[in-house]
Amino acid sequence: MSRRMKTLTIAAIAAVALVLVARSIAVGQSDRWYPSRWGADDQRGAANRITPAKVLEAKALITKGAIYQLGRVYEAGMPMFGSRHYSIRIPQAFEMPGRNEGVFHDDIISGELGQIGTQFDGLGHLGIGDLFYNGNRRREFAKPEGLTKLGIENVGPIVTRGVLVDVARFKGVEQLPPTYEITAADLTGALQRQRTEIGAGDVVLIHTGWGSLWMKDNAKFVATAPGIGVAAAQLLVNEEVVLVGSDNWGVEVMPNPDAELSAPVHQLLLARNGIYLHENLATEGLARDNVYEFVYVFAPLRLKGATGSPGNPIALR
Amino acid sequence: MSRRMKTLTIAAIAAVALVLVARSIAVGQSDRWYPSRWGADDQRGAANRITPAKVLEAKALITKGAIYQLGRVYEAGMPMFGSRHYSIRIPQAFEMPGRNEGVFHDDIISGELGQIGTQFDGLGHLGIGDLFYNGNRRREFAKPEGLTKLGIENVGPIVTRGVLVDVARFKGVEQLPPTYEITAADLTGALQRQRTEIGAGDVVLIHTGWGSLWMKDNAKFVATAPGIGVAAAQLLVNEEVVLVGSDNWGVEVMPNPDAELSAPVHQLLLARNGIYLHENLATEGLARDNVYEFVYVFAPLRLKGATGSPGNPIALR
Amino acid sequence: MSRRMKTLTIAAIAAVALVLVARSIAVGQSDRWYPSRWGADDQRGAANRITPAKVLEAKALITKGAIYQLGRVYEAGMPMFGSRHYSIRIPQAFEMPGRNEGVFHDDIISGELGQIGTQFDGLGHLGIGDLFYNGNRRREFAKPEGLTKLGIENVGPIVTRGVLVDVARFKGVEQLPPTYEITAADLTGALQRQRTEIGAGDVVLIHTGWGSLWMKDNAKFVATAPGIGVAAAQLLVNEEVVLVGSDNWGVEVMPNPDAELSAPVHQLLLARNGIYLHENLATEGLARDNVYEFVYVFAPLRLKGATGSPGNPIALR
Amino acid sequence: MSRRMKTLTIAAIAAVALVLVARSIAVGQSDRWYPSRWGADDQRGAANRITPAKVLEAKALITKGAIYQLGRVYEAGMPMFGSRHYSIRIPQAFEMPGRNEGVFHDDIISGELGQIGTQFDGLGHLGIGDLFYNGNRRREFAKPEGLTKLGIENVGPIVTRGVLVDVARFKGVEQLPPTYEITAADLTGALQRQRTEIGAGDVVLIHTGWGSLWMKDNAKFVATAPGIGVAAAQLLVNEEVVLVGSDNWGVEVMPNPDAELSAPVHQLLLARNGIYLHENLATEGLARDNVYEFVYVFAPLRLKGATGSPGNPIALR
Repeated sequence: MSRRMKTLTIAAIAAVALVLVARSIAVGQSDRWYPSRWGADDQRGAANRITPAKVLEAKALITKGAIYQLGRVYEAGMPMFGSRHYSIRIPQAFEMPGRNEGVFHDDIISGELGQIGTQFDGLGHLGIGDLFYNGNRRREFAKPEGLTKLGIENVGPIVTRGVLVDVARFKGVEQLPPTYEITAADLTGALQRQRTEIGAGDVVLIHTGWGSLWMKDNAKFVATAPGIGVAAAQLLVNEEVVLVGSDNWGVEVMPNPDAELSAPVHQLLLARNGIYLHENLATEGLARDNVYEFVYVFAPLRLKGATGSPGNPIALR
Repeated sequence: MSRRMKTLTIAAIAAVALVLVARSIAVGQSDRWYPSRWGADDQRGAANRITPAKVLEAKALITKGAIYQLGRVYEAGMPMFGSRHYSIRIPQAFEMPGRNEGVFHDDIISGELGQIGTQFDGLGHLGIGDLFYNGNRRREFAKPEGLTKLGIENVGPIVTRGVLVDVARFKGVEQLPPTYEITAADLTGALQRQRTEIGAGDVVLIHTGWGSLWMKDNAKFVATAPGIGVAAAQLLVNEEVVLVGSDNWGVEVMPNPDAELSAPVHQLLLARNGIYLHENLATEGLARDNVYEFVYVFAPLRLKGATGSPGNPIALR
Repeated sequence: MSRRMKTLTIAAIAAVALVLVARSIAVGQSDRWYPSRWGADDQRGAANRITPAKVLEAKALITKGAIYQLGRVYEAGMPMFGSRHYSIRIPQAFEMPGRNEGVFHDDIISGELGQIGTQFDGLGHLGIGDLFYNGNRRREFAKPEGLTKLGIENVGPIVTRGVLVDVARFKGVEQLPPTYEITAADLTGALQRQRTEIGAGDVVLIHTGWGSLWMKDNAKFVATAPGIGVAAAQLLVNEEVVLVGSDNWGVEVMPNPDAELSAPVHQLLLARNGIYLHENLATEGLARDNVYEFVYVFAPLRLKGATGSPGNPIALR
Repeated sequence: MSRRMKTLTIAAIAAVALVLVARSIAVGQSDRWYPSRWGADDQRGAANRITPAKVLEAKALITKGAIYQLGRVYEAGMPMFGSRHYSIRIPQAFEMPGRNEGVFHDDIISGELGQIGTQFDGLGHLGIGDLFYNGNRRREFAKPEGLTKLGIENVGPIVTRGVLVDVARFKGVEQLPPTYEITAADLTGALQRQRTEIGAGDVVLIHTGWGSLWMKDNAKFVATAPGIGVAAAQLLVNEEVVLVGSDNWGVEVMPNPDAELSAPVHQLLLARNGIYLHENLATEGLARDNVYEFVYVFAPLRLKGATGSPGNPIALR
């Protein structure tokens, strides 16, 4: 590169940097949210809060030997966001040689598998402009064959105390109304009613009742959703949770009451704080049985470079 | 139907039935293995052995709060059986409207997802001619859009005592030789060396050392495999286990020493006894740490009508 | 096999054969429609009618140098039969090394690609019970990794005289009514109005006007369709055509006026006569311009073992 | 935006623009190659050269009624670039209701369908940094659900005079050696030997003999390739052709003799001149029969927003 080009380059970079800083201030992101508290190289975020001590603490919650299945069935026709798809087919049977007449079936599946049905959002799923968790720049790690950083294979199993916050019950309804924004006061009130507290390293699941629309009124289910707002999410951040889940499709209220914001809770949790989301959970069994404390167990599929994971998380008590 | 046709039909059916019976005897399947012990309508097989009592029994094995990840990474280039495939791509980023600059990635995945990598074989995967678990006839439940019976969504979570049987260690090797058939005496001997016993409702994982070839020498890994033979499998059937897993690609020895048999252990476990298989497990961590007893936790993805499930099972101790 | 078993087997086979024959008569299929006129090993059916002479005959129809595109756009949201799907995504860009800054995109696509959108039905697509074209038995050639006979790769290019039969115009409407069965008299009448004749080795396209619903009213488009009935199809069989196409999704009337019949025209054309179908064609341009004779050109994608082919057939005049 | 931010933004953009211009000069791209000769809004490039006059000119080349199939079979195990994949499965048969025993098969296919096997590269496939054909900026049109500009659906059918240039024959070999760069003199010499000329609006296919490795020695086939270099490509640009095809996987020599260049011929043809590429063609039939002039017919599948198209182009003579 010539000296002149170098000078021009430096000038351009400096100017761009100034613009970026100005813009950051404009959208209220003046704070420096990276590197993460787990170091500049960390790719696991709040999964670091899973420790042997948390596992042992959780173990004590198993008193009945009951298992709740929190994952929904993946099937044709299930509600999906935008143009995502899910397809399953059973190919013709394979016939094996031999006198024992072995015959087997496979299944062939395609879809946005980390982002449909019951889904666990990884740290590479959603960011703020070009910036993702720990200040990783999208253009540097989002590659065609998989994310080269923040892939779901880095998360590891989550076994910890789980808390259900039954906001619907607290509000005295079966199902929160469409677009209802759950406030920090709602969370606090619901926890008081339940006499439950949230601790560092916990998983928090929000029961809105919206999940009762699943496969019953899919159009209504995906059109909007009640869910936590930014203030409620910030409360959970302050409590140092590992993951926030819900029985709706985005955990957070959709659309956001501020029409100029899209998915700000995702940004607050995933990008700024490394806290995971678990969407489309079947929380109705826990709510029905007033189970507010349990062991939450989920190990994301180790899909190298993926943004999320399908799965069937469970609650043990 | 005319009377003549009816007569012909009856004659034909009778003749076919005789042939089938004769053939069954010829391949040593004279015994009547269905309906299942859990009833003629059962679709869950040995998963019925998971009870609150087993969960509570398993709980006591958690003493250190340690978690072992038993699932391997799903990635391009991993060993696969036959012409199965796995593909993942990260589409262009989606940019959301709004001043908060939300940007997200999905992943798009295709493959025989229930039958690649770490895989849990369901009861609809493999049968004996037209007969599958509980006497279900393949042609009646194997439909293009999914199995209408024995789909993986019926299994439910498995949380129970897990036992690692380190056969490689018992034989004094790092890795059992190719095509080595693990005998019932090998299992018994390895259990004695470990001072471990197997009980009803347990999950049994066989460590062969073959898994150390994974992503190191894939061609060798898939060409053959050491694994349990029919007699060893029968021992596990007699012990009333829930699932048999291993660090090889088929649990059983491949190919079978009897060249006229293909996957007879699959038939014995899945079809005749409703016992699941878990293949391509990462058992090396347990073996390294001499962990022979643990809580095994796995909840198959609820893929409606699927023959198997990918996943990331864990061991807790 | 023992002698006794052999005897039983023979008896059973004989009895089954008798039943099959009786049943065949019962459903009006007493005629022996195989082996095909092109021999017992033929896999190409009416594509055998494409000869150099037909190509040269067709050539003379090119007088203006005009090209009509008969294929519709494959896109998200297009009408599809049953639970078939189509998905396309553009992965993140691949960046190549080197000072010339090469950057490229791929597309990743999944779906029932031979049977969605503009689709060419091959001879392995549809049969009568277990019998397909040329008496091939489904269970013998329908294998998981592709058809081992009658795959679309056998067809070869089709370049021949094409005839548009504008039945909508003949009936004085823009669009035939839902479930309208086109009769042989309709075909004859429409051809007379147009002063067009059909000859051996021709391709015949039926304009119903139903295609104007495409991406306008997809629900109506797929719910039913006007199209040819069995008698009209038989007329085209008698004329020894190569292919019958239309601007609806099944060429034939859907549902069939006889509620006990599903897709009998498919059976008559594909299975019994080796004549191809081309569905969801964009015939409106030809109809608008009163183009009743043209060169039809289509070369199915050579998808080994596939049942059909997507594509973009053209008409030249 | 505040006034200060606006000023900063303008300064940044100006500085960046200067850097880009300087860089462009540095890599020899000082010429202004856009807007295209077909206008700033054009998305079809050299397909604009297909006119009724060219169709009629081509028609005269049909003298024998012979059809050559130029597309290869798509099948498991075919050579593919990088980690692209192709999968086909035949699902279980669908059984239709009714007394006529309708039974049908679909196929389910996944892959980078525009960029595997015989493939037609569209104008959205490959660019120079952020710039594609007609100066379109990648980040503006490359969207997850498809390209919003330059998608393959814009191309339309190509029916024109085709010319085979048998460079292998000219060099006196069955197959050009690996990494052999075809020069402009090679093209000129081969054309002279054949007594063929290239004209505006023609399609030019280069026979290298490399295609004889297809499904014979796939590893060798994809490792490198003989093909045209930049100078030969420039000659074809000057001749105003529509498309350049070949029996190798990239049309151009791979790798480029200049180790600092990746796919420069793609950039010259697609981005700068709107000329298409057709890769992995079966040219051996034409070469064997000394067919140097013919009608080339190909209509890309109208895959909305796709970067390329699979297909089965044909040559008529």
